[in-house]
Amino acid sequence: MNKKKFAIGIDFGGTNIRGGLVDNTGKIKNYIKISTGSQKNYQEIKNKIIFILNKVISKNSSFKKNIAGVGIGFPGLIDVQRGIIIKSPNLPDLRNAPLALDIAKKIELPVVVENDANTIAWGEYCCGKYKNPESMICITIGTGIGGGIIINNNIWRGFSNTAGEIGHMIIKENGIKCGCGSRGCLEQYASASAMIRDAEKAIKRGVKTSLNLNKLTAFDIYKAAKKNDILAKKIFLSSVHYLSLGIASLINSFNPEIIVIAGGVAKAGSFYISPLKKEVYMYAYTSLINKTKIVKSTLGDCAGIIGSAFLILNADLNL
Amino acid sequence: MNKKKFAIGIDFGGTNIRGGLVDNTGKIKNYIKISTGSQKNYQEIKNKIIFILNKVISKNSSFKKNIAGVGIGFPGLIDVQRGIIIKSPNLPDLRNAPLALDIAKKIELPVVVENDANTIAWGEYCCGKYKNPESMICITIGTGIGGGIIINNNIWRGFSNTAGEIGHMIIKENGIKCGCGSRGCLEQYASASAMIRDAEKAIKRGVKTSLNLNKLTAFDIYKAAKKNDILAKKIFLSSVHYLSLGIASLINSFNPEIIVIAGGVAKAGSFYISPLKKEVYMYAYTSLINKTKIVKSTLGDCAGIIGSAFLILNADLNL
Repeated sequence: MNKKKFAIGIDFGGTNIRGGLVDNTGKIKNYIKISTGSQKNYQEIKNKIIFILNKVISKNSSFKKNIAGVGIGFPGLIDVQRGIIIKSPNLPDLRNAPLALDIAKKIELPVVVENDANTIAWGEYCCGKYKNPESMICITIGTGIGGGIIINNNIWRGFSNTAGEIGHMIIKENGIKCGCGSRGCLEQYASASAMIRDAEKAIKRGVKTSLNLNKLTAFDIYKAAKKNDILAKKIFLSSVHYLSLGIASLINSFNPEIIVIAGGVAKAGSFYISPLKKEVYMYAYTSLINKTKIVKSTLGDCAGIIGSAFLILNADLNL
Repeated sequence: MNKKKFAIGIDFGGTNIRGGLVDNTGKIKNYIKISTGSQKNYQEIKNKIIFILNKVISKNSSFKKNIAGVGIGFPGLIDVQRGIIIKSPNLPDLRNAPLALDIAKKIELPVVVENDANTIAWGEYCCGKYKNPESMICITIGTGIGGGIIINNNIWRGFSNTAGEIGHMIIKENGIKCGCGSRGCLEQYASASAMIRDAEKAIKRGVKTSLNLNKLTAFDIYKAAKKNDILAKKIFLSSVHYLSLGIASLINSFNPEIIVIAGGVAKAGSFYISPLKKEVYMYAYTSLINKTKIVKSTLGDCAGIIGSAFLILNADLNL
């Protein structure tokens, strides 16, 4: 562990940027959330991160000597060793941006940048209710589906920093076309976007439902499903079903101790996790002996901030 | 590395048991192969292994002081730490057999038992043409489909010693029933048995082909496909196709440096590997940057013997 007791964690999301000062038990002080905004060029991204950092540090100016550094979770392909955003799916103009160096120059603290799904996994691994298992796969379900794999007390980034792209496991042969260029990817069937797309299509076809085209989020679908809306329930359980196929393949190939479900759908709690477990244990070869645990995120929206800060605080991590 | 320069490797297969004295460069001396036979109770299994060991050691009796130990690759679920065969798919009566201890008592050398697909992967990792990559997944295609995962210079066994069951990744929703209890498992579509099953069905349906029900191995199908037999080619390429779906999911989730294809089909060489690569690179999300290499086994039938011996010779391995 790092000798200093605090680090700043930043979670750069598509809608909000969240930040805070995190202590070495995972507690967040001075939580700040600002809107990501629609103009997302590199200068603006840097400015927003610096804005958050200045807020957090000025609130803790007497503390600055105790702050070990800054961790930033960012969506996309990250070269963690060099602190560079190689590319980011929703920011096509952003290529090879040296974010860690640029922020470090301004803030005069060490800075680490990591893929956002990896920081969420790392947060759950270091500070979640089920912390420090032998191995963990954390699946973040939102607009897309991301994943973070923890093995040997380290984030497993793979050969070219792209490990954990669980949303692009192929779960349906010749399935729906995916933005990645392939077909039948998990995120086309189990992400929040997939649920909304299917609901929209059904409503437009005239299927009877309490769902409303003007207000249609995955959370709305969950609420309607809970109230027994037939369409909402069908869509919700279809998402569970396809995720269970992906998870069964992950368990059979990698046999992790625990799978954590994070992101928006985790808010549905046991309404989502219970049918998911039932299906996974039906399909997974290894289910009879030392079952892989399947749980929902216990840090919720804070997992990314905490995980980002723990990139710095847990100095055992091989960055 | 172990200070002693030799170990004995044994590869216990469904058809043959192979053994030999392996030096620390991976060379095999006094290779021995005997038939596994049909009577496979535990006593018989032990006797056959002891028979091979005595043959190898007596041929090298002056060497015994230089032999560091014995590694045994065995099909099934193995508790490597305790040297116990928990269960073996084709030997249902074999449960919790303390093979390592029983052999060690007789032979007075350290004995390690490991899952056979893992020993093949370990052999390729330690001594194959593409040795010591950052990470490797070795897929063994035969009657079933097995796998071995090497991460951080170690076999990744997972939480309950079942990692690498790649044959039970689900690649077809509601697909063919598998012996594991699930449906649509990869080995129902891409194993040698699957190819033979599909050929038999087609021949019985009267499909025109040069294939013959009385002599129908995966190798016969490969030979006929090479001679442009339409049915054989279709079956062969279908196996390639489904394997490519599984490999794409493995690359997208684990991003290994290299994937090695071992087992019988590897003998088809580029006739199998070339279309496989083409399909995988079409589906795999990460293919544009630092492509995962896909190669055929370079140790062939000897991978299991060498890998078993290297369980002992490579003392860095965390057993």
